[in-house]
Parts: sequence; C-alpha cells; structure tokens
Amino acid sequence: MKKNERDGQALTSAMLEGDRVALARLITAVENRGSDTAAIMSRVYARCSDTFIIGITGPPGAGKSTITSCLVQHLRARDQSVGVVAIDPSSPFSGGSVLGDRIRMQDHFLDPEVFIRSLSTRGSHGGLARAGRDVARIFGAYGKDVVIIETVGVGQTELDIMEVADTVAVVLVPESGDTVQVMKAGLLEIADLFVVNKADREGAVRMKTELQTMLSLRAGSGGEDTWEVPVLLTEAHNGKGTEEILNGCLAHHERPGDEERSRNRGQRLREEVIEICTEELVRRLHERSDDAPLAPVLERVARGEQDPYAAALEIINNDVSLARVLSGGDE
Amino acid sequence: MKKNERDGQALTSAMLEGDRVALARLITAVENRGSDTAAIMSRVYARCSDTFIIGITGPPGAGKSTITSCLVQHLRARDQSVGVVAIDPSSPFSGGSVLGDRIRMQDHFLDPEVFIRSLSTRGSHGGLARAGRDVARIFGAYGKDVVIIETVGVGQTELDIMEVADTVAVVLVPESGDTVQVMKAGLLEIADLFVVNKADREGAVRMKTELQTMLSLRAGSGGEDTWEVPVLLTEAHNGKGTEEILNGCLAHHERPGDEERSRNRGQRLREEVIEICTEELVRRLHERSDDAPLAPVLERVARGEQDPYAAALEIINNDVSLARVLSGGDE
Repeated sequence: MKKNERDGQALTSAMLEGDRVALARLITAVENRGSDTAAIMSRVYARCSDTFIIGITGPPGAGKSTITSCLVQHLRARDQSVGVVAIDPSSPFSGGSVLGDRIRMQDHFLDPEVFIRSLSTRGSHGGLARAGRDVARIFGAYGKDVVIIETVGVGQTELDIMEVADTVAVVLVPESGDTVQVMKAGLLEIADLFVVNKADREGAVRMKTELQTMLSLRAGSGGEDTWEVPVLLTEAHNGKGTEEILNGCLAHHERPGDEERSRNRGQRLREEVIEICTEELVRRLHERSDDAPLAPVLERVARGEQDPYAAALEIINNDVSLARVLSGGDE
Repeated sequence: MKKNERDGQALTSAMLEGDRVALARLITAVENRGSDTAAIMSRVYARCSDTFIIGITGPPGAGKSTITSCLVQHLRARDQSVGVVAIDPSSPFSGGSVLGDRIRMQDHFLDPEVFIRSLSTRGSHGGLARAGRDVARIFGAYGKDVVIIETVGVGQTELDIMEVADTVAVVLVPESGDTVQVMKAGLLEIADLFVVNKADREGAVRMKTELQTMLSLRAGSGGEDTWEVPVLLTEAHNGKGTEEILNGCLAHHERPGDEERSRNRGQRLREEVIEICTEELVRRLHERSDDAPLAPVLERVARGEQDPYAAALEIINNDVSLARVLSGGDE
C-alpha cells in the first residue's frame, strides 16, 4: 500500500469516528482526485446510505444560495445536521454575486452541526462532477442527516453532479426566460420540484402556469403512484415559501418506491461504475505518459512525426501495450 | 473491417476529392463519435496542415456571431474560402439570441465557398470538445483556407475546443464585468487578441486600459519575439474595426516561431493522444457493459449488492478482466 493510500485510509477512519479536521482534510483529498479516491469512497459509501441528499440548481441569480441558507435554517430548527456542497460557477460571466452568496451563508458558519464546503470548477474538467458527488457522500458518512448540493445548472458538469441527489429542486426567476428554454436546458428532466423565486416580480404566476402546463404535457405515462412535480412560489430574500420547499423535498423523498425508480437507480449505479473506471484509466494514462510504451509514441507525435489519431490507435489497438499502460501495476 | 468503418473511409475519400455532400455526412459521422472516428481523423489530419484555424470566444451576448460574420465577409473579399464551426451554448440561460445569430450568418449560406456547421452541446459530455476540433480539421482537409470556431467561453468544454485554434480572439463587451473576472475565467491565458465590442457603449475605453494593464503585468518573461496581445475596439453591428480583427489574427498567425511555441504545440499534441485514447476506452467500456466480465459486476451494483467504487476497483485492478474489457477485439 502506498503512502497516500495509507493516509487516505487513516483519514477515513478518523472522519468516520467524527473528527472534524479529518473530514475537512478528507474532502480536500477527494477534491484532488488522488489515486486512493475510489478506495476511500468505497468505505465512505457503505456509511452514507441514510443521508438525504437535496440538489438545488438553476440559472445564475435565481437565488439558489439564499434558498440553501433558508433550508439550512429550517433543517436546524428541526434539529437536523446539515452539510452543504456549493459548486462555484465555472464562469464569472454567468453572473451572480458569489461573494455575497457566501456571506449570506455565514449565518451558519459558527454552527458545529453545519458544514459548508465550496468546490471550484476551475481546471478540474470531468473530475468536478465526481468530486461533488463524493463530497456529498462523505458528509453523509460523517453523519449529516441532510446534504444540500448547490450548483449553477448551466453546464453538463453541473447537471451531472445532480445525479447524486435524491431530490432535485430547480430554482427559476420570472426573468429566467420562457419555459421552452427550461426544457432545452434539460432542467425539466431532472426537476422533482420547481421553485419560482422572486415571486413578487412580474411574470411569476405566468411562469408557474407555463411550468405546470409543460409538466402535465410530459406526464402521460404516470400511474397513480407517479410523483407530481409541484411548482412553488417563493420570496427567499424574506424567507417566504422556503419552508414549503423543504416540505416538498421531504415529501418527494418519502414517496412510495416504484419499479421505475429502482430501475433508474440501478441504471445510474451501473453508469457510475463506468465513470469511476474511466477516471482511474485516465489517471493511469497521464501518470504513465513518461514511461514506455507510451513515452516514445507521445514523443513522435510531439515532434510531428506521427499524427495524434494514428498514435492513439496504435496504443489502443495493441492489446499488449495497452495492458502495460493500464495494468494495476501495484508493486 | 466493420461496415461503418468502410463507410467512414469511403466518405473520407469522397470528401478529400471535394464532394460537398460527403463533407456534410462525414461531419455528422464525426459528431456522432462512432468507433471509426479516430481512423477517419488520422487521414483527415494529414491533409489539414495549411489551414488557419481562428477561435472566437467570449461571454454570451458579446457579439461573437456578428464578428464571425464580418470576418467571413472580409475573408471572402480576399478570395479565401471559409469553414465555420459554431458551438451552440449548452444552456439557454447563458443568454444570446441563437436564432438571431444564425439568421445573421445567412448572408453567407448561398456562397459555395463558405460552409457553416453548428454543433450542439446537449448531451454530448466530453465528446463535444473533441467533435469541435475534429470538424475544424475536416474543413481544413476539405480545402478551406480559414476555419473559424465560435464558442461561448463559459465552460471548460468550450475552452478546450479552443486548443485546436492557431489564434484565439476573445470578444468582450463593456458590460462583461471587470477584468478580474476575465482572469478568473481563464480567458487571459488563451487570448491572442482581445476585442472590446460595442465600443460605443460606456466603459469600453476603461475596459481596454484595464486589459492592457493586466496583460503588461502578466508579460514579464517575454523576450523581443514575444507576441504582444493587442486590445481592439470594435462596433461589429456596423462592421467598424472588424477588418482589424482579421489583420490582427493574421499577424499573430504569421509571427516568427519560437521555442516556447513549438514546445507548447508538442505538449498539446501529447495531451491530445491521451484524450483520443480516453475517448476510445470510454466507448469500449460502454459498448461492452452487457458482456462478461463487466456485465455481472454491473448487475451486482445495480442490485445494491456491491458499492460502485469497490466494483470499479475490482474491474480496474484485475489486469486480466481489464484486458478483456478493453482489448481491441476486432474479430
């Protein structure tokens, strides 16, 4: 066992025993996507089954952080411990006052039962979607009753993170654009609950009606057990309607299970295995790019003597080379 | 050789001989990321070396499409053939009037020397970055003198696509936010040229000054051969200043080569080999997820009998299984 793997396992043990410092360090380790991430997460996974993971997403400026802050408050009033994973937007142009948002969250920074962690999307490529989910599960294993993941739902990465959530609330504002755009963004597919925030503004009621129409058009298949996606009106800046969001999320979470639900869950888990494999294979490709048999091929390409596609095919279609590049190699 | 590979090679041959229908079909094939993509692209790559690839990126609503349209016009006036790859934003919330943009481009739809293709970001995960680059190269191999790739620079995928460009112009507007945000978005690193569009609006000159200051702070290392990133003021809606963008791009493209430049190019190509390998490995993982040895593991996970991390480790650390899953397997 390598050193960082030993460290990872020690941190995991300490975290599972309730060590808050170990929790913070373990999150950092997982955020960095080291070689021991999957081993850490396998132990974590077994311990996070009872945690309720809520996803909050929507366009920039919709008031997601304010709503998250209100949800934390309501949960604390019900004596529930909370973990918050806030995914910072990958682009500053998407708007929103990140700093202001975080300041609002400071209400909860002194509460030992609330743990808030921001993950940044800069430079982490596909790894962020996995890091976000893993951190949510670590909070669960640490013993948080509820974990809230907040992302800006503008990119595939952010939508991918939402797959870890048991219940997803999509927050919109009347200015978010018409509801056809909601469909185009793929938000209709992931919403278990719609929130039209800033409902004191013009167009809020119309947006609610449009969303309801769209949802009813989509339904079709539903038997009597089918979850009806509610559309809530809120004014989060003064807390109005936010407790209904929490109640809606809980109602969704506690709905009776059905076949489709467990099928979807199974399919998601299958997909996740493939993603974890992929991440590890990519890590190995990078890690071993300075050794044979990869190095000489890459050198040829860098010198312009072979095109990158032909080089990749050469590596990929030579089973012996590929096995050497990708084998576990745990000396 | 499988059927789709035969088709791919026939299409490639026809495209290289100038068949416009084959070009369109080949682009679709590459957009779909079939198993023959790398083989197609290896043939394409050898033929696209003389093409100048310009990248246009920046926040939504900066006027990128209008500028692209102006560049096409200037290039046509110089008797250059042009291919345009427009990457549609992954999110409707990022703003911008996609339809309106495309309508503006219609000026060029009847010109046989201009070929415009939109790629959509919906549902294509990491594949889009590769598809965008590949399509640019196909245009090059088809014989286009210049290829323009236009993306909304708000996500990692969009920035990744820009790596195929020889010259990147970052388009901003005075309202894009302050220049610190430009840095945060990673746009400073990729810009060979800044364009402050809608320069008749308040704050344009201040933005230009700020950008210049930031660029001068960064420089440092530069010898006399270092490219100085220009900051241009334009009003693209009436064509003002857009020819200077083209001239700036050409000046950048024709600058004397230096060691750092070829080192960066080599590094990018090395990285690209790894990306192509990764894409193919992921394809194989998915393709073979219904066969042994993957299928029984995935089934166990779907039934909740094993956690996805442990399952992935089991596949990844068993060299024999892994080889079976990932081998070329070209019966």
